[in-house]
Amino acid sequence: MPNITVELLAGRTRAQRAEFARVVTEAVVDVLGAPRHLVRIRFTELAHDQLALGGELTEPPAPRADSV
Amino acid sequence: MPNITVELLAGRTRAQRAEFARVVTEAVVDVLGAPRHLVRIRFTELAHDQLALGGELTEPPAPRADSV
Amino acid sequence: MPNITVELLAGRTRAQRAEFARVVTEAVVDVLGAPRHLVRIRFTELAHDQLALGGELTEPPAPRADSV
Amino acid sequence: MPNITVELLAGRTRAQRAEFARVVTEAVVDVLGAPRHLVRIRFTELAHDQLALGGELTEPPAPRADSV
Amino acid sequence: MPNITVELLAGRTRAQRAEFARVVTEAVVDVLGAPRHLVRIRFTELAHDQLALGGELTEPPAPRADSV
Amino acid sequence: MPNITVELLAGRTRAQRAEFARVVTEAVVDVLGAPRHLVRIRFTELAHDQLALGGELTEPPAPRADSV
Repeated sequence: MPNITVELLAGRTRAQRAEFARVVTEAVVDVLGAPRHLVRIRFTELAHDQLALGGELTEPPAPRADSV
Repeated sequence: MPNITVELLAGRTRAQRAEFARVVTEAVVDVLGAPRHLVRIRFTELAHDQLALGGELTEPPAPRADSV
Repeated sequence: MPNITVELLAGRTRAQRAEFARVVTEAVVDVLGAPRHLVRIRFTELAHDQLALGGELTEPPAPRADSV
Repeated sequence: MPNITVELLAGRTRAQRAEFARVVTEAVVDVLGAPRHLVRIRFTELAHDQLALGGELTEPPAPRADSV
Repeated sequence: MPNITVELLAGRTRAQRAEFARVVTEAVVDVLGAPRHLVRIRFTELAHDQLALGGELTEPPAPRADSV
Repeated sequence: MPNITVELLAGRTRAQRAEFARVVTEAVVDVLGAPRHLVRIRFTELAHDQLALGGELTEPPAPRADSV
Protein backbone atom coordinates (compact mmCIF):
# COMPACT_ATOMS: atom_id res chain seq x y z
CA MET A 1 0.00 0.00 0.00
CA PRO A 2 -1.00 2.70 -0.50
CA ASN A 3 -3.41 2.38 -3.39
CA ILE A 4 -4.49 5.75 -4.77
CA THR A 5 -7.39 6.15 -7.22
CA VAL A 6 -7.80 9.37 -9.18
CA GLU A 7 -11.25 9.84 -10.75
CA LEU A 8 -11.41 12.76 -13.16
CA LEU A 9 -13.01 13.90 -16.41
CA ALA A 10 -11.22 12.55 -19.48
CA GLY A 11 -8.93 14.90 -21.41
CA ARG A 12 -5.60 15.12 -19.58
CA THR A 13 -2.46 14.19 -21.51
CA ARG A 14 -0.16 11.28 -20.71
CA ALA A 15 2.48 13.81 -19.69
CA GLN A 16 0.07 15.36 -17.15
CA ARG A 17 -0.74 11.95 -15.66
CA ALA A 18 2.97 11.04 -15.52
CA GLU A 19 3.89 14.29 -13.74
CA PHE A 20 0.96 14.01 -11.32
CA ALA A 21 1.92 10.43 -10.48
CA ARG A 22 5.50 11.55 -9.85
CA VAL A 23 4.53 14.40 -7.51
CA VAL A 24 1.96 12.37 -5.57
CA THR A 25 4.40 9.47 -5.13
CA GLU A 26 7.00 11.90 -3.74
CA ALA A 27 4.39 13.13 -1.25
CA VAL A 28 3.53 9.57 -0.21
CA VAL A 29 7.21 8.88 0.48
CA ASP A 30 7.95 12.22 2.17
CA VAL A 31 4.72 12.81 4.12
CA LEU A 32 3.19 9.36 4.68
CA GLY A 33 6.50 7.48 4.89
CA ALA A 34 5.55 4.57 2.61
CA PRO A 35 8.23 2.99 0.39
CA ARG A 36 8.19 4.30 -3.20
CA HIS A 37 7.94 0.89 -4.87
CA LEU A 38 4.70 0.09 -3.03
CA VAL A 39 2.82 3.17 -4.26
CA ARG A 40 0.11 2.41 -6.84
CA ILE A 41 -1.81 5.21 -8.53
CA ARG A 42 -4.70 4.41 -10.81
CA PHE A 43 -6.43 6.97 -13.08
CA THR A 44 -10.13 6.56 -13.89
CA GLU A 45 -11.14 8.94 -16.70
CA LEU A 46 -14.86 9.69 -17.08
CA ALA A 47 -16.79 10.80 -20.15
CA HIS A 48 -18.88 13.88 -19.47
CA ASP A 49 -22.17 11.99 -19.63
CA GLN A 50 -20.98 9.50 -17.00
CA LEU A 51 -20.80 12.24 -14.36
CA ALA A 52 -23.57 14.32 -12.79
CA LEU A 53 -22.85 17.35 -10.60
CA GLY A 54 -25.70 18.90 -8.63
CA GLY A 55 -28.21 16.64 -10.40
CA GLU A 56 -27.16 17.45 -13.98
CA LEU A 57 -25.09 15.31 -16.35
CA THR A 58 -22.02 17.35 -17.29
CA GLU A 59 -21.52 18.60 -20.85
CA PRO A 60 -18.28 18.59 -22.86
CA PRO A 61 -16.87 22.14 -23.21
CA ALA A 62 -18.04 23.91 -26.40
CA PRO A 63 -15.34 23.77 -29.17
CA ARG A 64 -13.37 27.10 -29.18
CA ALA A 65 -14.44 29.45 -32.05
CA ASP A 66 -10.83 29.75 -33.39
CA SER A 67 -10.48 25.98 -33.53
CA VAL A 68 -13.51 25.46 -35.78
CA MET B 1 -19.91 15.07 -0.42
CA PRO B 2 -21.72 12.86 -1.00
CA ASN B 3 -20.05 10.93 -3.79
CA ILE B 4 -22.33 8.32 -5.34
CA THR B 5 -21.05 5.60 -7.69
CA VAL B 6 -23.52 3.64 -9.83
CA GLU B 7 -22.08 0.41 -11.30
CA LEU B 8 -24.38 -1.19 -13.90
CA LEU B 9 -24.32 -3.14 -17.13
CA ALA B 10 -23.83 -0.93 -20.19
CA GLY B 11 -26.85 -0.10 -22.33
CA ARG B 12 -28.83 2.67 -20.65
CA THR B 13 -29.44 5.85 -22.60
CA ARG B 14 -28.15 9.30 -21.73
CA ALA B 15 -31.73 10.33 -20.96
CA GLN B 16 -32.03 7.47 -18.42
CA ARG B 17 -28.78 8.48 -16.70
CA ALA B 18 -29.87 12.14 -16.64
CA GLU B 19 -33.25 11.32 -15.09
CA PHE B 20 -31.73 8.91 -12.56
CA ALA B 21 -29.15 11.53 -11.53
CA ARG B 22 -31.95 14.09 -11.10
CA VAL B 23 -34.11 11.81 -8.91
CA VAL B 24 -31.19 10.59 -6.75
CA THR B 25 -29.93 14.16 -6.23
CA GLU B 26 -33.43 15.20 -5.07
CA ALA B 27 -33.37 12.32 -2.58
CA VAL B 28 -29.94 13.36 -1.29
CA VAL B 29 -31.22 16.89 -0.69
CA ASP B 30 -34.60 15.88 0.77
CA VAL B 31 -33.63 12.78 2.79
CA LEU B 32 -29.92 13.18 3.61
CA GLY B 33 -29.95 16.98 3.81
CA ALA B 34 -26.81 17.61 1.74
CA PRO B 35 -26.65 20.71 -0.47
CA ARG B 36 -27.49 20.03 -4.13
CA HIS B 37 -24.31 21.51 -5.59
CA LEU B 38 -22.13 19.12 -3.57
CA VAL B 39 -23.77 15.93 -4.92
CA ARG B 40 -21.58 13.97 -7.37
CA ILE B 41 -22.94 10.90 -9.15
CA ARG B 42 -20.65 8.79 -11.27
CA PHE B 43 -21.83 6.02 -13.62
CA THR B 44 -19.59 3.01 -14.29
CA GLU B 45 -20.95 0.94 -17.19
CA LEU B 46 -19.73 -2.64 -17.49
CA ALA B 47 -19.51 -4.88 -20.54
CA HIS B 48 -21.18 -8.26 -19.98
CA ASP B 49 -17.90 -10.14 -19.90
CA GLN B 50 -16.53 -7.87 -17.17
CA LEU B 51 -19.16 -9.08 -14.71
CA ALA B 52 -19.67 -12.52 -13.17
CA LEU B 53 -22.82 -13.40 -11.19
CA GLY B 54 -22.88 -16.65 -9.21
CA GLY B 55 -19.54 -17.68 -10.76
CA GLU B 56 -20.50 -17.19 -14.41
CA LEU B 57 -19.53 -14.32 -16.73
CA THR B 58 -22.77 -12.68 -17.90
CA GLU B 59 -23.85 -12.90 -21.52
CA PRO B 60 -25.34 -10.10 -23.63
CA PRO B 61 -29.08 -10.64 -24.20
CA ALA B 62 -29.80 -12.58 -27.42
CA PRO B 63 -30.88 -10.18 -30.27
CA ARG B 64 -34.74 -10.16 -30.48
CA ALA B 65 -36.09 -12.31 -33.37
CA ASP B 66 -38.07 -9.36 -34.85
CA SER B 67 -34.98 -7.16 -34.84
CA VAL B 68 -32.78 -9.50 -36.93
CA MET C 1 -26.44 -5.24 -10.73
CA PRO C 2 -26.57 -2.38 -10.16
CA ASN C 3 -24.23 -1.82 -7.26
CA ILE C 4 -24.55 1.67 -5.78
CA THR C 5 -22.01 3.11 -3.32
CA VAL C 6 -22.90 6.19 -1.28
CA GLU C 7 -19.90 7.93 0.33
CA LEU C 8 -20.88 10.63 2.82
CA LEU C 9 -19.84 12.22 6.09
CA ALA C 10 -20.94 10.20 9.12
CA GLY C 11 -23.94 11.41 11.10
CA ARG C 12 -27.12 10.36 9.27
CA THR C 13 -29.61 8.21 11.15
CA ARG C 14 -30.60 4.67 10.27
CA ALA C 15 -34.04 5.99 9.29
CA GLN C 16 -32.45 8.41 6.79
CA ARG C 17 -30.38 5.62 5.24
CA ALA C 18 -33.43 3.34 5.05
CA GLU C 19 -35.56 6.01 3.34
CA PHE C 20 -32.77 6.97 0.94
CA ALA C 21 -32.25 3.30 0.00
CA ARG C 22 -36.00 2.94 -0.62
CA VAL C 23 -36.23 6.02 -2.88
CA VAL C 24 -33.06 5.20 -4.87
CA THR C 25 -34.17 1.60 -5.38
CA GLU C 26 -37.53 2.84 -6.73
CA ALA C 27 -35.63 5.05 -9.17
CA VAL C 28 -33.44 2.15 -10.29
CA VAL C 29 -36.55 0.07 -11.02
CA ASP C 30 -38.56 2.90 -12.64
CA VAL C 31 -35.82 4.77 -14.55
CA LEU C 32 -33.06 2.20 -15.20
CA GLY C 33 -35.36 -0.82 -15.46
CA ALA C 34 -33.34 -3.19 -13.24
CA PRO C 35 -35.19 -5.74 -11.08
CA ARG C 36 -35.64 -4.60 -7.46
CA HIS C 37 -34.08 -7.69 -5.86
CA LEU C 38 -30.79 -7.11 -7.71
CA VAL C 39 -30.26 -3.55 -6.40
CA ARG C 40 -27.45 -3.27 -3.82
CA ILE C 41 -26.79 0.03 -2.05
CA ARG C 42 -23.80 0.37 0.21
CA PHE C 43 -23.19 3.34 2.56
CA THR C 44 -19.62 4.42 3.39
CA GLU C 45 -19.61 6.93 6.24
CA LEU C 46 -16.49 9.06 6.68
CA ALA C 47 -15.13 10.76 9.78
CA HIS C 48 -14.41 14.45 9.18
CA ASP C 49 -10.67 14.00 9.31
CA GLN C 50 -10.77 11.30 6.62
CA LEU C 51 -12.03 13.81 4.04
CA ALA C 52 -10.30 16.84 2.53
CA LEU C 53 -12.17 19.40 0.41
CA GLY C 54 -10.16 22.00 -1.51
CA GLY C 55 -6.96 20.84 0.22
CA GLU C 56 -8.21 21.10 3.82
CA LEU C 57 -9.29 18.26 6.12
CA THR C 58 -12.91 18.91 7.10
CA GLU C 59 -13.83 19.79 10.68
CA PRO C 60 -16.82 18.47 12.64
CA PRO C 61 -19.50 21.15 13.07
CA ALA C 62 -19.11 23.14 16.32
CA PRO C 63 -21.55 21.88 19.04
CA ARG C 64 -24.69 24.17 19.10
CA ALA C 65 -24.65 26.65 22.02
CA ASP C 66 -28.06 25.43 23.33
CA SER C 67 -26.85 21.84 23.40
CA VAL C 68 -23.84 22.56 25.67
CA MET D 1 -23.00 -9.71 -0.97
CA PRO D 2 -20.14 -10.17 -1.40
CA ASN D 3 -19.12 -7.76 -4.13
CA ILE D 4 -15.62 -8.43 -5.43
CA THR D 5 -13.74 -5.97 -7.67
CA VAL D 6 -10.68 -7.12 -9.60
CA GLU D 7 -8.50 -4.28 -10.94
CA LEU D 8 -5.80 -5.44 -13.33
CA LEU D 9 -3.91 -4.43 -16.46
CA ALA D 10 -5.86 -5.11 -19.64
CA GLY D 11 -4.90 -8.15 -21.72
CA ARG D 12 -6.44 -11.24 -20.13
CA THR D 13 -8.76 -13.38 -22.26
CA ARG D 14 -12.44 -13.96 -21.64
CA ALA D 15 -11.61 -17.57 -20.80
CA GLN D 16 -9.16 -16.43 -18.09
CA ARG D 17 -11.75 -14.11 -16.56
CA ALA D 18 -14.39 -16.86 -16.66
CA GLU D 19 -12.10 -19.41 -14.96
CA PHE D 20 -10.97 -16.87 -12.34
CA ALA D 21 -14.58 -15.96 -11.56
CA ARG D 22 -15.44 -19.65 -11.18
CA VAL D 23 -12.55 -20.38 -8.79
CA VAL D 24 -13.09 -17.26 -6.67
CA THR D 25 -16.82 -17.95 -6.40
CA GLU D 26 -16.07 -21.48 -5.19
CA ALA D 27 -13.79 -19.99 -2.53
CA VAL D 28 -16.47 -17.53 -1.43
CA VAL D 29 -18.94 -20.40 -0.99
CA ASP D 30 -16.48 -22.82 0.65
CA VAL D 31 -14.42 -20.44 2.81
CA LEU D 32 -16.67 -17.42 3.47
CA GLY D 33 -19.95 -19.34 3.46
CA ALA D 34 -21.92 -16.94 1.25
CA PRO D 35 -24.55 -18.34 -1.15
CA ARG D 36 -23.26 -18.74 -4.73
CA HIS D 37 -26.03 -16.74 -6.38
CA LEU D 38 -25.18 -13.64 -4.32
CA VAL D 39 -21.52 -13.49 -5.41
CA ARG D 40 -20.75 -10.60 -7.81
CA ILE D 41 -17.29 -10.26 -9.36
CA ARG D 42 -16.47 -7.21 -11.44
CA PHE D 43 -13.32 -6.86 -13.58
CA THR D 44 -11.78 -3.41 -14.16
CA GLU D 45 -9.11 -3.55 -16.86
CA LEU D 46 -6.61 -0.70 -17.00
CA ALA D 47 -4.57 0.60 -19.93
CA HIS D 48 -0.87 0.84 -19.11
CA ASP D 49 -0.88 4.63 -19.04
CA GLN D 50 -3.71 4.69 -16.50
CA LEU D 51 -1.52 3.02 -13.87
CA ALA D 52 1.59 4.29 -12.11
CA LEU D 53 3.79 2.01 -9.98
CA GLY D 54 6.48 3.59 -7.82
CA GLY D 55 5.81 6.98 -9.41
CA GLU D 56 6.14 5.90 -13.06
CA LEU D 57 3.32 5.31 -15.56
CA THR D 58 3.61 1.70 -16.71
CA GLU D 59 4.57 0.85 -20.29
CA PRO D 60 3.05 -1.83 -22.49
CA PRO D 61 5.44 -4.79 -22.91
CA ALA D 62 7.69 -4.42 -25.99
CA PRO D 63 6.39 -6.52 -28.95
CA ARG D 64 8.39 -9.86 -29.04
CA ALA D 65 11.14 -9.88 -31.72
CA ASP D 66 9.69 -13.02 -33.39
CA SER D 67 6.28 -11.38 -33.62
CA VAL D 68 7.49 -8.25 -35.49
CA MET E 1 -1.50 -5.18 -9.83
CA PRO E 2 -3.93 -6.74 -9.45
CA ASN E 3 -5.80 -4.99 -6.68
CA ILE E 4 -8.75 -7.02 -5.40
CA THR E 5 -11.42 -5.55 -3.11
CA VAL E 6 -13.79 -7.85 -1.23
CA GLU E 7 -16.90 -6.13 0.16
CA LEU E 8 -18.91 -8.33 2.52
CA LEU E 9 -21.03 -8.21 5.66
CA ALA E 10 -18.95 -8.16 8.84
CA GLY E 11 -18.63 -11.36 10.83
CA ARG E 12 -15.99 -13.58 9.18
CA THR E 13 -13.03 -14.67 11.27
CA ARG E 14 -9.42 -13.76 10.65
CA ALA E 15 -8.78 -17.38 9.71
CA GLN E 16 -11.50 -17.21 7.03
CA ARG E 17 -10.02 -14.04 5.56
CA ALA E 18 -6.51 -15.55 5.62
CA GLU E 19 -7.64 -18.72 3.83
CA PHE E 20 -9.70 -16.79 1.27
CA ALA E 21 -6.74 -14.50 0.52
CA ARG E 22 -4.51 -17.57 0.07
CA VAL E 23 -6.89 -19.30 -2.36
CA VAL E 24 -7.62 -16.16 -4.40
CA THR E 25 -3.92 -15.32 -4.68
CA GLU E 26 -3.23 -18.85 -5.97
CA ALA E 27 -5.94 -18.30 -8.59
CA VAL E 28 -4.43 -14.97 -9.63
CA VAL E 29 -1.04 -16.63 -10.13
CA ASP E 30 -2.37 -19.78 -11.83
CA VAL E 31 -5.20 -18.34 -13.94
CA LEU E 32 -4.31 -14.67 -14.53
CA GLY E 33 -0.54 -15.15 -14.53
CA ALA E 34 0.35 -12.24 -12.26
CA PRO E 35 3.31 -12.55 -9.89
CA ARG E 36 2.31 -13.50 -6.32
CA HIS E 37 4.09 -10.60 -4.59
CA LEU E 38 2.08 -8.05 -6.59
CA VAL E 39 -1.34 -9.36 -5.51
CA ARG E 40 -3.16 -7.07 -3.03
CA ILE E 41 -6.47 -8.14 -1.51
CA ARG E 42 -8.41 -5.73 0.64
CA PHE E 43 -11.44 -6.68 2.76
CA THR E 44 -14.20 -4.13 3.42
CA GLU E 45 -16.58 -5.36 6.11
CA LEU E 46 -20.02 -3.74 6.30
CA ALA E 47 -22.38 -3.41 9.25
CA HIS E 48 -25.88 -4.62 8.41
CA ASP E 49 -27.36 -1.13 8.43
CA GLN E 50 -24.78 0.09 5.91
CA LEU E 51 -26.15 -2.24 3.24
CA ALA E 52 -29.54 -2.25 1.49
CA LEU E 53 -30.66 -5.16 -0.71
CA GLY E 54 -33.79 -4.71 -2.85
CA GLY E 55 -34.49 -1.36 -1.16
CA GLU E 56 -34.35 -2.56 2.45
CA LEU E 57 -31.52 -2.07 4.95
CA THR E 58 -30.34 -5.53 6.02
CA GLU E 59 -30.90 -6.77 9.56
CA PRO E 60 -28.42 -8.70 11.72
CA PRO E 61 -29.47 -12.37 12.04
CA ALA E 62 -31.63 -13.03 15.14
CA PRO E 63 -29.56 -14.58 18.00
CA ARG E 64 -30.06 -18.42 17.93
CA ALA E 65 -32.50 -19.67 20.63
CA ASP E 66 -29.91 -22.13 22.07
CA SER E 67 -27.32 -19.38 22.36
CA VAL E 68 -29.46 -17.07 24.53
CA MET F 1 -14.00 16.41 -9.83
CA PRO F 2 -11.48 15.06 -9.30
CA ASN F 3 -12.26 12.56 -6.56
CA ILE F 4 -9.13 11.01 -5.07
CA THR F 5 -9.22 7.95 -2.78
CA VAL F 6 -6.18 7.06 -0.68
CA GLU F 7 -6.23 3.51 0.70
CA LEU F 8 -3.49 2.85 3.27
CA LEU F 9 -2.76 0.96 6.46
CA ALA F 10 -4.06 2.73 9.56
CA GLY F 11 -1.57 4.61 11.74
CA ARG F 12 -0.84 8.00 10.14
CA THR F 13 -1.52 11.12 12.17
CA ARG F 14 -4.08 13.79 11.37
CA ALA F 15 -1.20 16.17 10.63
CA GLN F 16 0.21 13.72 8.03
CA ARG F 17 -3.18 13.42 6.34
CA ALA F 18 -3.64 17.21 6.37
CA GLU F 19 -0.21 17.82 4.81
CA PHE F 20 -0.69 15.06 2.21
CA ALA F 21 -4.08 16.50 1.24
CA ARG F 22 -2.51 19.96 0.89
CA VAL F 23 0.34 18.76 -1.35
CA VAL F 24 -1.86 16.56 -3.56
CA THR F 25 -4.43 19.35 -3.99
CA GLU F 26 -1.62 21.72 -5.11
CA ALA F 27 -0.56 19.10 -7.68
CA VAL F 28 -4.13 18.73 -8.95
CA VAL F 29 -4.36 22.50 -9.46
CA ASP F 30 -0.85 22.93 -10.93
CA VAL F 31 -0.53 19.75 -13.03
CA LEU F 32 -4.10 18.69 -13.86
CA GLY F 33 -5.56 22.20 -13.97
CA ALA F 34 -8.69 21.49 -11.90
CA PRO F 35 -10.05 24.23 -9.61
CA ARG F 36 -8.98 23.84 -5.96
CA HIS F 37 -12.49 23.92 -4.48
CA LEU F 38 -13.55 20.90 -6.57
CA VAL F 39 -10.78 18.59 -5.29
CA ARG F 40 -12.03 15.86 -2.90
CA ILE F 41 -9.56 13.53 -1.20
CA ARG F 42 -10.83 10.64 0.86
CA PHE F 43 -8.65 8.51 3.16
CA THR F 44 -9.54 4.84 3.75
CA GLU F 45 -7.46 3.40 6.60
CA LEU F 46 -7.18 -0.38 6.81
CA ALA F 47 -6.49 -2.60 9.81
CA HIS F 48 -3.64 -5.04 9.18
CA ASP F 49 -5.92 -8.05 9.04
CA GLN F 50 -8.09 -6.43 6.36
CA LEU F 51 -5.19 -6.47 3.88
CA ALA F 52 -3.38 -9.39 2.25
CA LEU F 53 -0.15 -8.92 0.27
CA GLY F 54 1.16 -11.84 -1.78
CA GLY F 55 -1.51 -14.12 -0.27
CA GLU F 56 -0.78 -13.39 3.39
CA LEU F 57 -2.79 -11.19 5.77
CA THR F 58 -0.46 -8.44 6.99
CA GLU F 59 0.63 -8.31 10.62
CA PRO F 60 0.92 -5.20 12.81
CA PRO F 61 4.58 -4.25 13.40
CA ALA F 62 6.00 -5.84 16.56
CA PRO F 63 6.07 -3.35 19.51
CA ARG F 64 9.62 -1.84 19.81
CA ALA F 65 11.70 -3.40 22.63
CA ASP F 66 12.31 -0.02 24.32
CA SER F 67 8.59 0.70 24.38
CA VAL F 68 7.65 -2.47 26.30
